[in-house]
Amino acid sequence: MARFLYQTREFDCPVQLSMTVLMGKWKVLVLWQLFLKNRRYGELKRLVPGISHKVLSDTLKVLEEERFIFRHDYHENPPHVEYGLTDQGRDLEPILRALQQWGMQYKAPHSP
Amino acid sequence: MARFLYQTREFDCPVQLSMTVLMGKWKVLVLWQLFLKNRRYGELKRLVPGISHKVLSDTLKVLEEERFIFRHDYHENPPHVEYGLTDQGRDLEPILRALQQWGMQYKAPHSP
Repeated sequence: MARFLYQTREFDCPVQLSMTVLMGKWKVLVLWQLFLKNRRYGELKRLVPGISHKVLSDTLKVLEEERFIFRHDYHENPPHVEYGLTDQGRDLEPILRALQQWGMQYKAPHSP
Repeated sequence: MARFLYQTREFDCPVQLSMTVLMGKWKVLVLWQLFLKNRRYGELKRLVPGISHKVLSDTLKVLEEERFIFRHDYHENPPHVEYGLTDQGRDLEPILRALQQWGMQYKAPHSP
């Protein structure tokens, strides 16, 4: 049986690997917003409904450690920091697109 | 802002809808196995590593209620019951494929 390695974790199935690595609802929603464009912390907080400050900063930290996103500090005053997807993060486009397209079929009637 | 409705639940974003409806690690792993071919309960139990009897039967029940899968009883003796994807379940192919392809890049060296 094929084996799949992600960092130090081993899996029997590529779907199981992807699910374990990617799935955490907040992770995917933050990745989706950054897939659309680079964002500041405040924008992400607004754009991901229901996410708390703690969960957002923890999620950004994990995503940065796993090299799906980068954090760019412009060293300005007032402070200007932006987050964006790395190349590894951009590799997730097919998954993010597929999730978006599947959800689009449930667009509410008369919704803009 | 566009709105998205899934049964009685409302969302701001299609990705959030997809994530909430689909994501539950076990749900996707069961869907993936049924995407490959129809299966009996015992096969699913073997093919989804770590899933307990309770979680597997609950997951099958939810997936059937949400009409992603069907349950076919052949009324034979010994009993013969199979599970498979409905058309709505087959709509998930792009998401399942994208998860599989992303995971394939982590195939272990010298793995069959």
